[in-house]
Amino acid sequence: MLRLQGEMIRGGTSKCWIFDHQDVVATGVDVDTLLLAAFNAADPRQIDGVGGASSTTSKAAVVQASAEPDVDIEYAFAQVGIGDESVEWASNCGNCATAVALYAVHRGLVPLTSDRTTVRMLNINTDARLTGTIPTPGRSAPDEGRAVVPGTNALGVPVLLGFQDPVGSTTGRALPTGHAVDTLTGPEGPVEATLVDAGAPAALFEAKAVGLEGTESLTEFAAAVPALTVLRRQAALAMGLAEEGDPVSHAVPKVGIVARPVSYRTTHGTLVAQDEYDLAVRMVSMHAPHPAIGLTSAVALATAAAIPGTLAHRVARQTADGTLRLGTPAGVITAQAVPAPDGASPTVLLHRAARRIARAELLVPVLEGRPA
Amino acid sequence: MLRLQGEMIRGGTSKCWIFDHQDVVATGVDVDTLLLAAFNAADPRQIDGVGGASSTTSKAAVVQASAEPDVDIEYAFAQVGIGDESVEWASNCGNCATAVALYAVHRGLVPLTSDRTTVRMLNINTDARLTGTIPTPGRSAPDEGRAVVPGTNALGVPVLLGFQDPVGSTTGRALPTGHAVDTLTGPEGPVEATLVDAGAPAALFEAKAVGLEGTESLTEFAAAVPALTVLRRQAALAMGLAEEGDPVSHAVPKVGIVARPVSYRTTHGTLVAQDEYDLAVRMVSMHAPHPAIGLTSAVALATAAAIPGTLAHRVARQTADGTLRLGTPAGVITAQAVPAPDGASPTVLLHRAARRIARAELLVPVLEGRPA
Repeated sequence: MLRLQGEMIRGGTSKCWIFDHQDVVATGVDVDTLLLAAFNAADPRQIDGVGGASSTTSKAAVVQASAEPDVDIEYAFAQVGIGDESVEWASNCGNCATAVALYAVHRGLVPLTSDRTTVRMLNINTDARLTGTIPTPGRSAPDEGRAVVPGTNALGVPVLLGFQDPVGSTTGRALPTGHAVDTLTGPEGPVEATLVDAGAPAALFEAKAVGLEGTESLTEFAAAVPALTVLRRQAALAMGLAEEGDPVSHAVPKVGIVARPVSYRTTHGTLVAQDEYDLAVRMVSMHAPHPAIGLTSAVALATAAAIPGTLAHRVARQTADGTLRLGTPAGVITAQAVPAPDGASPTVLLHRAARRIARAELLVPVLEGRPA
Repeated sequence: MLRLQGEMIRGGTSKCWIFDHQDVVATGVDVDTLLLAAFNAADPRQIDGVGGASSTTSKAAVVQASAEPDVDIEYAFAQVGIGDESVEWASNCGNCATAVALYAVHRGLVPLTSDRTTVRMLNINTDARLTGTIPTPGRSAPDEGRAVVPGTNALGVPVLLGFQDPVGSTTGRALPTGHAVDTLTGPEGPVEATLVDAGAPAALFEAKAVGLEGTESLTEFAAAVPALTVLRRQAALAMGLAEEGDPVSHAVPKVGIVARPVSYRTTHGTLVAQDEYDLAVRMVSMHAPHPAIGLTSAVALATAAAIPGTLAHRVARQTADGTLRLGTPAGVITAQAVPAPDGASPTVLLHRAARRIARAELLVPVLEGRPA
C-alpha cells in the first residue's frame, strides 16, 4: 500500500485534494494511476477512496515551484472520474486555484514578506496565469477567516483570485468572430449572440431570446437548456472551436443567458434586490443549470460587459470602477476588471474563500504502477 | 481552528471516520458540535467538511479501550446529518464495526499475540457485542488484503465480523409475538409475516405475498415499497416497538421479503445461479430498496432461517453448518450462525472487508465549543 501526503482544501464551492509534485514523483507511479486509485474513480460512489462522488468533490491539483519568470508555483488540475476510470486534464478550475493558493502559503512555496501575500500561479492545463492574494498577518499563514462565497454558508480564508490577461486565452481574440453580436440559428430561428473568449470561450444570449427573464430558479431555467445546447454547438462552429463533423462538446464554449437586474430570490430563498447587482446571469453546466457560475465564465461575463455593443454590455448596469456584480442562482458574485500593464488585457479579480479541511496521509492501493 | 486526529476507513460498503475518544475529549468540545463542524453537516453537499454527503459516507465512530469484562474496546456510532445539523446516536452500523476493528489493531488497542487477532467490541449505542477477527501475520497490523464484499470491487483486509448473542437485543425475545408466523393487514388484505428480533428487529414477508419472486432488480422491487411501508407500521405495533398514536418510524423494524433461490442477475449484471445461494432477500431501507442488505438485517435473516416454522425457514435452503448465503441485489452475502456457550444465542458471523483510506489531522471550525 503506497503512501501519499495530501491536503483536502475547500476552494469556494469545490473540495479539492492538493498534492505536492515531488511527493507524486517519489511514488514512482504515474499520476493518473495514482489519482484513479486514491479516489476509487472506478466506483460511482467512490466508496474506497478520498473522492466525494460528485463533480465538485472529485477534484485534485498537483503543485510545484515554478522556474517560469513571474510565476511562483505551477499546478495541474485534474477532474477525477466518478464511476469512470479516467482523469481529465483539459480544463482549469478557479475554485481549486484558490485552494492551491492557500496550500502554497502554508507549504512555504512563496515567501511571506508582509501582511498580504500574492501567489503567482500558472495553470499548466491551460497556460492561464492567476494570482491568489491572501492575508498573512504577522507573516503567518492563516487557517481561518470570515470570507463567504455564494453557494455555502461556510467561512473561509479570503482569497482574492486574479485572472491575468484572460482575453483570447483559447482563440487569441476577445471576440473571435470580430463582432460584438452575431446571429446564430437556434431551434426556433435566428438568435443574437455575443461570442467572447476570456477566461474561457463563452456564448451569451439575452434571456428574452429564449423566453426568460434571466432571474429564473434552477428548475425554471432548466426548460431553456435544450435550446441552449443547440446554440452551444452553433457557437462552437462560429468561434472556430469545432468544425462540422467534429463530435459535439457539452463543455465548450460555456453558454448562458444575461438580463437586466430585477429583484429575485436565490436558491436558498434570500431576496436579492434589483440594486444589489448589475447583471443577471444563468449559465449551463454540461446538460443542466449551473447552481452559481463557473469562475472562468464570470471572467468572460466581466470582459464582455466591458465591451460596448455586446449583449452583456447592453443589459448590464455600468459601473465606474470596472466592478460587475453578477446575480447568479446562488447569490451575487462580484468580478472586477482592473487595468494591466504592458498591453495585457485587464486582470479580472474575484473575491473568494478557501479553507484547509484536513492534512492527510493517503493509503493508495497501487502496486508497482498498477492498481493492486 | 481546532485540530483532531482521525482515520478515514472503508468498512464494507460504508466510509467511516474513526476518532479516538481521548482525542475528542481533549478538544474540550462536545462531540456533536465537533462532528457537525468536521462534517459540515449543515450543508446538503458537506462541501466544507470531511463528509461524503451520502448516508453511507456521513458516518463516524468514537473508540476507546473498555473496562467491561470480555470487551477490548467500545465505540459509539454516529450517523451525521446531511443538510441537517443533527447527529443520530440511536443505531449501530455493522460496516463501521469492521472499520473500528481494523482501527483497533492498528492503534494498538488490542495486543497482537498471534497471526489472527480478535477485537472484542461493545457498541455503546445499542449495547450490542461484536467481534472483528483480522489476520495479523507476524503480529503486525495489515493495510491490505484480498477480501471483497458485494457492492464494491475494491479489495480490503478480511474482517470476520461476529454479532454476539444477537437474539432479542431490542425486545428480549427472538420472536417478540411468540409466533413464528403472524398475520398482518396490508393494503390488499391479510399477509403472513415473520417478526424476528436478532441484530435488529425485522419484519419478513414472502415475496409472493406482495406479488414478487424475491429476485427482482432494485427498480422492480421499488414497486413493493409502499405496501411494505404500510406493513412495517403494522409490524412495529405487533412487536411492541410502537403504540397507536406514536409517530411512524421508517427505520424500525427492518422490513423485507424472502423467497426460494432462483437464478438472478445482480445490479452489476453478474449472474447468480440458483445453487450459489440459499435464500433470496430484498430489503427496504427507509423509503427505497436497499442496494444490498444491512448487516443487522442479515443477522435477523440468519436467525429467522434457523427457526422452524418461520417464513424464512420455509423457503431457505437448509445447510448443515449454520451457513446461510443471502442473495441480495448486490450479490451474495454469507452469514453463519455458530453455537455460543452459556446459553447465549448463536453468534452470527459475516465475512467482510475493510481498508484504511487515509490518516488525517482534521481542521475543525469550532471555537470554544461553538461553531466558529
